[in-house]
Amino acid sequence: MSVAERVREAYARISAVDRPEVWISLLPEADAVRQAEDIDRRVVDGESLPLAGSLAAVKDNIDVAGFDTTAGSRRFAYRPSADATAVARLRAAGACVIGKTNLDQFATGLVGTRSPFGAVRSAWDPTRISGGSSSGSAVAVAMGLVDIALGTDTAGSGRVPAALNGIVGVKPTVGLVPTTGVVPACRTIDCVTVFARELTLARAVTEIMSGPDGIDPIARVDRPAPAIEARPRVAVPTSEHLDGLAAGWKEAFHRLVASLPAMGIDVVEVDIAPLLDAAALLYGGAFVAERTAAVGDFIAEHEDLIGTDLDPSVAQIVLGGRQARAVDYFRDRERLDRWGMEGLARLDGTVALLTPTTTWHPTLAEVARDPIGANSRMGRYTNFANLLDRSALAVPAGAVAGSPFGIMLTGAPFADRTLAQLAQRLTSPAVDLLVVGAHLRGQPLNAQLVAAGGTFITEARTAAEYRLFALPTTPAKPGLVRVSDGGTGVAGEIWRVPAAGFGGFVAALPQPMGIGRVHLADGTAVAGFLCEQIALDGAKDITDFGGWRAYLASSG
Amino acid sequence: MSVAERVREAYARISAVDRPEVWISLLPEADAVRQAEDIDRRVVDGESLPLAGSLAAVKDNIDVAGFDTTAGSRRFAYRPSADATAVARLRAAGACVIGKTNLDQFATGLVGTRSPFGAVRSAWDPTRISGGSSSGSAVAVAMGLVDIALGTDTAGSGRVPAALNGIVGVKPTVGLVPTTGVVPACRTIDCVTVFARELTLARAVTEIMSGPDGIDPIARVDRPAPAIEARPRVAVPTSEHLDGLAAGWKEAFHRLVASLPAMGIDVVEVDIAPLLDAAALLYGGAFVAERTAAVGDFIAEHEDLIGTDLDPSVAQIVLGGRQARAVDYFRDRERLDRWGMEGLARLDGTVALLTPTTTWHPTLAEVARDPIGANSRMGRYTNFANLLDRSALAVPAGAVAGSPFGIMLTGAPFADRTLAQLAQRLTSPAVDLLVVGAHLRGQPLNAQLVAAGGTFITEARTAAEYRLFALPTTPAKPGLVRVSDGGTGVAGEIWRVPAAGFGGFVAALPQPMGIGRVHLADGTAVAGFLCEQIALDGAKDITDFGGWRAYLASSG
Repeated sequence: MSVAERVREAYARISAVDRPEVWISLLPEADAVRQAEDIDRRVVDGESLPLAGSLAAVKDNIDVAGFDTTAGSRRFAYRPSADATAVARLRAAGACVIGKTNLDQFATGLVGTRSPFGAVRSAWDPTRISGGSSSGSAVAVAMGLVDIALGTDTAGSGRVPAALNGIVGVKPTVGLVPTTGVVPACRTIDCVTVFARELTLARAVTEIMSGPDGIDPIARVDRPAPAIEARPRVAVPTSEHLDGLAAGWKEAFHRLVASLPAMGIDVVEVDIAPLLDAAALLYGGAFVAERTAAVGDFIAEHEDLIGTDLDPSVAQIVLGGRQARAVDYFRDRERLDRWGMEGLARLDGTVALLTPTTTWHPTLAEVARDPIGANSRMGRYTNFANLLDRSALAVPAGAVAGSPFGIMLTGAPFADRTLAQLAQRLTSPAVDLLVVGAHLRGQPLNAQLVAAGGTFITEARTAAEYRLFALPTTPAKPGLVRVSDGGTGVAGEIWRVPAAGFGGFVAALPQPMGIGRVHLADGTAVAGFLCEQIALDGAKDITDFGGWRAYLASSG
Repeated sequence: MSVAERVREAYARISAVDRPEVWISLLPEADAVRQAEDIDRRVVDGESLPLAGSLAAVKDNIDVAGFDTTAGSRRFAYRPSADATAVARLRAAGACVIGKTNLDQFATGLVGTRSPFGAVRSAWDPTRISGGSSSGSAVAVAMGLVDIALGTDTAGSGRVPAALNGIVGVKPTVGLVPTTGVVPACRTIDCVTVFARELTLARAVTEIMSGPDGIDPIARVDRPAPAIEARPRVAVPTSEHLDGLAAGWKEAFHRLVASLPAMGIDVVEVDIAPLLDAAALLYGGAFVAERTAAVGDFIAEHEDLIGTDLDPSVAQIVLGGRQARAVDYFRDRERLDRWGMEGLARLDGTVALLTPTTTWHPTLAEVARDPIGANSRMGRYTNFANLLDRSALAVPAGAVAGSPFGIMLTGAPFADRTLAQLAQRLTSPAVDLLVVGAHLRGQPLNAQLVAAGGTFITEARTAAEYRLFALPTTPAKPGLVRVSDGGTGVAGEIWRVPAAGFGGFVAALPQPMGIGRVHLADGTAVAGFLCEQIALDGAKDITDFGGWRAYLASSG
């Protein structure tokens, strides 16, 4: 398909999804097609364009020549004379930039609702927020409107919306991608980030944009990433720092963590309290004055626009930095340094900290009720990364209760490639399968799961809505059946099976067995064994044993 | 000689030189001898003590167990429970610490006069300042009271006094030597520094003290130094940034620079204006609030002591940081980043910036007349180093008008070893010799200079106090004679000859030639050819030709 054809398809899709709030500026289709035709010609001419065919959107705090840069405010808007360095490199590699996306104003927020251009709704559920501040970019990628989108990240803005929309968000080490042509939030720790549906593409785009440009003084040369060990070790937060997550997220995270040793990844629990203390400084201390230095004068000069063109929460935060003294900054810096050193020392010997990306996925109404409180809960795991010079990336890890659940790896500066390798390992597509009978560990058919590449994850129990029957098969098997009344929780095991192996496994199932979705006692749901109703004729109801092993023990 | 014997000698010398202002605390001799005897025993026991036998002094803003730490204020003094990390490492390597040295209070100053413990006088000239803030440490080393002394350096405090006292001052990359146990001046850019009479010893001490201690969050792991090229290139300031130096210093510097190509070192002139702009931020902007954060509360609570225990200049500077806002800090940081990038980009392709270490050597009276103005002139070449994360070292480069003249190499972070190699090359002892006759380039005896390892530096002219005679020798030679009346400037050449080669050269001189000190037209003086008066009988006075070449040309 030519790039021009891809553009036409994208515009049809943009129209079909009806999410106007995603865009602050969108190129007229004819102009986008002309740009695409030019790329098509360059390809025909034999230019090496690694991103040819990729459609891109750019967060509207990053300059793209030909578009206003609003940073989320009509009054602030200016027309840049040139592309930002990151955008110029993206275009030089053949990407076709079609528009500028909505954002939390001045990149201040993690919600996606702080914009006079409208609140951006989640790609998955229009009653919920998209996350921010790179809201439009994340949703544009998640809905398939573009292939890649640039965001920015100071406190989590390139990661939180990736998590809430089920896509990948790469936040490189500070300085790898120059911020020349980016409206500063906190100039010394701002990062240009990349959203994509696949990690490989997001990483490739990051590499293409990396390297000092001679203009941004924060930019720095990449260094060799630490080699990933044969059996790497990741840190995960101790349980108390996983409290207060959205329903089912802690369990989903624990299930993922439980699967790691079987993937050859060791896990060590770490008390991340000092990192969370450090994170709190980003908005709770004098560091916010860096935002004030960037756009505080503008907001102060246009206080009459607060509530219309200027978002009240953003104004409150940015102007809040006016009071801080330089002495306060240096004292906060010392606290940051000490907490950072203490927290990071605890990660010694691990290749990354693995966390959920954010803590919950509020509705638009919930954020409207408590705009600052709702927002601040969301940055628990993201806020410290840039302050403490960390590399990070957010990847999807399935869904919980119909909404995406995302995890994040946070590592040393310049560990960006290492994190990507680890993320590939963590997220190679796999299916969690509940087994309740002959596939349990030690049972006759367990070898089938192992042959399919499966690994034992955890013991589990179904929701209290199932009954279990002993079927007259050889080898002996139980049948699990969901009932409307009189159900109970049935014991089983969750196994993680690579998608490819799982396909073959399912294709080989004999009657009367089937695979469907099974609710678990913890409120989540996984793939699991079901049984055709027809097979229950003459089968023995063994529900009261609570599980196949208990039944076997009693009958053995 | 045992360490105990060395200690007894040192105490005799301390008493003899009568510079009580060097010390804030000095260990009683008996205690120092006991400490030395303990080191002697450890040596006998076979311990590996690379610094055994070295006597050391420590600037009194660095903790040494058993001594108060005053930082230059009796009221501020506290008794530390442990050695600073740097001191502990020094002692573990066998150094014998005998006392704590005077300093510009709170390490704020480059003069050495800002102390209620008295102004520290130059080791070479008691009417002049020692330089600071590590004043006592530098003088203790320069007068041979100790072998090594620790200083600190934020704006040049470990380099300026090295230059003014004719010794070596090593200022490592920020973070190489932990500052645990050091009273902060500007916590994030303070360095522990080393004074010694020899570069090799100063570097060894630096290496021994290097490496994170797990306590100082600013500490970082060393990285491999860039390899020095076969023909390295150094940058030197363009002429306008060498203006305003003490009499003769610019000429001395230019002579050194002129000698570099012959030593295999290329020179490129660089406009360092952006680095000087960056340097001005250290005291002219919000950065001073880091000093306020460190000791501002203490000074504010003891304002009644200003003029007695608290130095008025120091108090004025430190309290001046109270007004700065955090917003100002972030704006200054941006200017620093931009000037720094611009300035450092101009140094691309060079291994170091070579400058005079400081700009002048005022008398105590000159500083008393204008305490802040006199001080601020001194930091021109030193102030930007720590702000811009540079490694640096100061080495002696001879004397001008009876006072030491010092030069400084400033390089990339972690280039410390490279700078030391380069400094060795630059300062291998050599003699500048004025030749006026048969040793001039192209003349019959020039080969003797070349054979002695000499290199041509520059054309030069004597002060207008000499006469020149053509002697009846073979080959023909002139005789240079200083006269009280009717002298003129005589043309010649300056050659730099390695000290060893020079010794042999002088030993082989025939009558009536001799080597003495010759005044030059630029006000400096170098070794040069003289002639016995007795040889002038019958010699032809050729003074009016202005030089040997002109005479030869006229008579040829």
